[in-house]
Amino acid sequence: MIKTLEWTSAGVVFIDQTKLPTEETYVTCKTYQEVADAIVTMIVRGAPAIGVAAAMGVALGTNQAQANTIAELRPQFEKICDDLAATRPTAVNLFWAIRRMKDKFSEVDSQPVAQIKSELIKEAQRMYIEDIAACEAMGRNGAVLLPKSGGVLTHCNAGALATCGYGTALGVIRSAVSSGSKINVYADETRPFLQGSRLTAWELQHDGIPTTVIADNMAGAMMRLGKINAVIVGADRIAANGDVANKIGTYSVAILAKEHNIPFYVAAPWSTIDLATATGEQIPIEQRSPKEVTHHAGKQVAPTGIAVENPAFDVTPNKYIAAIITERGVAKAPYSESLRALEKAETVTA
Amino acid sequence: MIKTLEWTSAGVVFIDQTKLPTEETYVTCKTYQEVADAIVTMIVRGAPAIGVAAAMGVALGTNQAQANTIAELRPQFEKICDDLAATRPTAVNLFWAIRRMKDKFSEVDSQPVAQIKSELIKEAQRMYIEDIAACEAMGRNGAVLLPKSGGVLTHCNAGALATCGYGTALGVIRSAVSSGSKINVYADETRPFLQGSRLTAWELQHDGIPTTVIADNMAGAMMRLGKINAVIVGADRIAANGDVANKIGTYSVAILAKEHNIPFYVAAPWSTIDLATATGEQIPIEQRSPKEVTHHAGKQVAPTGIAVENPAFDVTPNKYIAAIITERGVAKAPYSESLRALEKAETVTA
Repeated sequence: MIKTLEWTSAGVVFIDQTKLPTEETYVTCKTYQEVADAIVTMIVRGAPAIGVAAAMGVALGTNQAQANTIAELRPQFEKICDDLAATRPTAVNLFWAIRRMKDKFSEVDSQPVAQIKSELIKEAQRMYIEDIAACEAMGRNGAVLLPKSGGVLTHCNAGALATCGYGTALGVIRSAVSSGSKINVYADETRPFLQGSRLTAWELQHDGIPTTVIADNMAGAMMRLGKINAVIVGADRIAANGDVANKIGTYSVAILAKEHNIPFYVAAPWSTIDLATATGEQIPIEQRSPKEVTHHAGKQVAPTGIAVENPAFDVTPNKYIAAIITERGVAKAPYSESLRALEKAETVTA
Repeated sequence: MIKTLEWTSAGVVFIDQTKLPTEETYVTCKTYQEVADAIVTMIVRGAPAIGVAAAMGVALGTNQAQANTIAELRPQFEKICDDLAATRPTAVNLFWAIRRMKDKFSEVDSQPVAQIKSELIKEAQRMYIEDIAACEAMGRNGAVLLPKSGGVLTHCNAGALATCGYGTALGVIRSAVSSGSKINVYADETRPFLQGSRLTAWELQHDGIPTTVIADNMAGAMMRLGKINAVIVGADRIAANGDVANKIGTYSVAILAKEHNIPFYVAAPWSTIDLATATGEQIPIEQRSPKEVTHHAGKQVAPTGIAVENPAFDVTPNKYIAAIITERGVAKAPYSESLRALEKAETVTA
């Protein structure tokens, strides 16, 4: 099993996703600042993984705080939370995870400092386990939606590497394959960071699931040739009306799917659903360095001084989405109602 | 002015398009086989440029043939034509250019060998001049279709570097800008070969036309943000019914344009129109090496042994195309009729 991230006595350990697929190396973050850096530099990425990483960062930083009293601990805890919240703006799981650590802090703040520290570590570890369980539940809930055989397109990496294990969109694919579906995955390479060719292809190859890498601009042609029967992606934030922020290019894939009458599914844990955000218009979109576009593996591929746009995410309006698969069940349009209904639901257990 | 290719006494000179934008170097092909290699390796690319390059290759090879009689010359001429025709399958300009050299050969084959050789060189040079004139006429014919201000998206490179000068799609943009239009060009980087970021951005920057490079998967998001008012691309082959084969990804862009009610234009010289091919279904699509997708600047970015699709072109059905701009005029739907009508037309002169 792929260990995307792990709480250890030496610190928070991450597989270095910037080095895959050619090098499988691990980074141990010994301070919360190192965890924050790992999120910013995308050593760890993927909305659910970022959430748990941030929780572990909060637990790590708080555990290392020099404090004898709650009065000394609280401002340090707040700063740790603020620093981790400032790493990336779009994936709501980050803010959800920090909120949950704050709630836990409030819950136990009458206890001794050592006990508070211990409770925060346990909470982060609990979130890790819950994330894997949520992915497995999503897999069970979504597998039936995928074709019994044929091509399934995915964009970016919504796999084990984007979560604590198993994956969201790739978890659904894994579950379908386990149930006997003969699926060939088409993995968009996902420029500029190549999460598709580097990460999705690597982890599916690892599992022996047939996978074909394509450049992002080939998805339409593959659909026209009849090679794609369904699309499934993850999400970084889902608004209350079902609009989905996900990796740049997701919106284009959704339009292509609509034009070819191919169902377009989104798989995400409940921590990605942001009922406090009414529509996709209100989701902040991270802009990343132009250099991700102008340089390939260090080599300059665009003229010096050229203008570049590099939004890391886009928003897919709810009308393009056939279903949103969560651990609590599958939501369909109208999402304003179906997501609210799931708010009260429990995780579907095996 | 950018010298994409040139007939010189030393051989056929090409700007090396595999080295742009960081190195402006030139390659002199001293034999027709070297010209064929330059086409295969994409030192020269772009349908109109490939056509004239092949014609120059035919002229060069025939000129170097050891032959005292037409009987000795003819089989060598035929082999040269065959070898050049085998370089790339999709761009019809290649076959059009070779056909035209064969017609010229037939026309002059009663003359002395030295005269035949000289006539073939002159024919290739004529095609060079005609290509530039055709681009300028396309520019005049198409400029009025572009917005007076706003964003114009292009895919791949249909510029001076894809022709003998001025360009097809970029020629229309150049003409519009010359007429005072305030256009910001969005250049899809165009994976896997990056003709957009490497070539389109370079030549438009050269001309001082504002240009923004985006990854291919950002086009939809830019349209949704209202940044794109028109799309214009070139073509590698246009069937009698107006279906357009062009660089992979063009089809996806056409669908995105339709979804956003943005006009999608194609600019191409008459030599790209293939009335002998009924529909896009019959256009052969070149498959290129998986390594173009799996490696960036020599660095491996996909796991070893992963499957890859790498079609170099796709077909955009005529229903997505607002107009086809040629040097003979602008065709609109129904293309089966409008293209036939243009068959009899003359190039529009200034």
